[in-house]
Amino acid sequence: MKKNINAAVYETHGNPADVVRVESRSWPAPADGEAVVEMRAAPINPADLNQIEGKYPIRPQLPATPGFEGAGVVVDLGRNVTNIAEGALVILPHNIGTWRDAAAVKADELVVVPAGIEPVHAAMLKINPMTAWRLLHDYVDLQKGEWLIQNAANSAAGRAVIQIARELGYKTVNVVRRVELIDELRAEGDDIVLVDGENLRHEVKDATNGAPIRLGLNAVGGDSALRLANCLAPESTLVTYGAMSLQPLKIPNGLLIFKDLRFRGIWINKWYDNATKQERIEAFQRLFEMAKRGLLKTKVEKAYPLSDAKAAVTHAAQGKRSGKIIFEFQ
Amino acid sequence: MKKNINAAVYETHGNPADVVRVESRSWPAPADGEAVVEMRAAPINPADLNQIEGKYPIRPQLPATPGFEGAGVVVDLGRNVTNIAEGALVILPHNIGTWRDAAAVKADELVVVPAGIEPVHAAMLKINPMTAWRLLHDYVDLQKGEWLIQNAANSAAGRAVIQIARELGYKTVNVVRRVELIDELRAEGDDIVLVDGENLRHEVKDATNGAPIRLGLNAVGGDSALRLANCLAPESTLVTYGAMSLQPLKIPNGLLIFKDLRFRGIWINKWYDNATKQERIEAFQRLFEMAKRGLLKTKVEKAYPLSDAKAAVTHAAQGKRSGKIIFEFQ
Repeated sequence: MKKNINAAVYETHGNPADVVRVESRSWPAPADGEAVVEMRAAPINPADLNQIEGKYPIRPQLPATPGFEGAGVVVDLGRNVTNIAEGALVILPHNIGTWRDAAAVKADELVVVPAGIEPVHAAMLKINPMTAWRLLHDYVDLQKGEWLIQNAANSAAGRAVIQIARELGYKTVNVVRRVELIDELRAEGDDIVLVDGENLRHEVKDATNGAPIRLGLNAVGGDSALRLANCLAPESTLVTYGAMSLQPLKIPNGLLIFKDLRFRGIWINKWYDNATKQERIEAFQRLFEMAKRGLLKTKVEKAYPLSDAKAAVTHAAQGKRSGKIIFEFQ
Repeated sequence: MKKNINAAVYETHGNPADVVRVESRSWPAPADGEAVVEMRAAPINPADLNQIEGKYPIRPQLPATPGFEGAGVVVDLGRNVTNIAEGALVILPHNIGTWRDAAAVKADELVVVPAGIEPVHAAMLKINPMTAWRLLHDYVDLQKGEWLIQNAANSAAGRAVIQIARELGYKTVNVVRRVELIDELRAEGDDIVLVDGENLRHEVKDATNGAPIRLGLNAVGGDSALRLANCLAPESTLVTYGAMSLQPLKIPNGLLIFKDLRFRGIWINKWYDNATKQERIEAFQRLFEMAKRGLLKTKVEKAYPLSDAKAAVTHAAQGKRSGKIIFEFQ
């Protein structure tokens, strides 16, 4: 008999620290075509907290186990699994609930991580680096040497944007809210780092010598999104992937009519749902190549054991962190 | 010696009734490649008033003659004009200033109107019907039988949308601000006419049996634009071509991220600048075909002689008109 596992669970939507608890369950048995994955690491993302709060557009059946991403090791195989071996490090799909010691998952939906990438690193490639990858591929056909601009540049996705842009030969204007982040991001070798504010447009123009910027990436919304839009060249695109300010975009009609700006958005889980397996694998291969060179590492502020889930979600809900809050499993 | 002409002119930006006056000029002489057009009709569009007020994104050199559109008859040809004959009814380009008795224009930039279309009718095809044509062609690849939704449905462009949509086999949900417009638009045989309001989304859903609406056309902005956006299916596009409310669009981040709505805009004068001559001619041919059957007629509330320009622009600035204010020339 295998030991029991722990899983985080919530039965009603609400403040995560109030509604998330940890319960014991029996060890998962793999059905036909399934693999059992023993979790190694899973982050707490804003979307996880939103879903627990009931503010996410998809509500799971309750009770539910949170966790849109994570990585673990295959420890057991059901019948008719040919694509995966025991011992493989794998990334889990987004509909499993990763905040648990182990899960039985359709083997087909697991992404095998190549050697040379640590579990904690692998556990945080699926949402933020993949969002960054798609942001730089699916909206504007930038040429090498062209500029893009982003706010929330110090976020996990923002840092991935910086690294992927450098791989692809694009230059980045990185906008942050706090002056103390400038040196830290500049130390990463970024092209330009500026503090958001009313004068942003002129500072950007000075810093880029007025070069046209055809892609803006917005994870803040509200006034910050508008300031980004005002930095863009005519016929450019602003892609929204986050809403840290919780404020809607305010778009003067003239930016649409006369400047021909295009406003789009991305939801990475939807991208996974719509992508073919081949498209998913191809995108991951490129992320893995970068990860093996030590890139696309998401900074961690603190790792918690799953048994401390309440403390972990409380910590994750605080602003001004230096990195992610994650679960590490024994 | 030919007689002098009158031309409207303004020397400073300001309230149109204050700054527009009419002055006498010598009869225009055609340069090489030019034709002299004696004007027949020219409307007063909102963009004309905006430009006089200095609120338009392009400011002309002052003094300037207003008027983005109009039609007239070719009465004189310069040397090396082979594409056009005296007596032809033509539509003028948008950079001439049509509020004048006659103008010398590059013959290449004139669009010849086929027989069977009256000058007043021809004079108002270039902006509103062409905007409607582009709105229905350049943004979403609708299939016959599909729905679109628009606000300001009783505007000149809105009525053109209704007629062109019918030609193309699309069904329209037409949103108006005043209940007294419902019967008038329904009499045109429109599919659905609704009064804008908080309950719009549910009324639309009832009226269309919940069919997905993949294209929204916005000439109002502000809350009305958001109500349109909320009627759209995921991955749909809202195209803005006017801003009657003078309020910016307010776009909740979730409409971009989770619903994947796309927000675009169109500026028809820019379309003309970017289009090839062949593209312009092809689009006009289709509008002319409809116009010959009596369609795409813009309603006129009152025609003024150019000498009454002040009264005309004052009238045009009033809301709740039943049609355009135009200049008719002797």
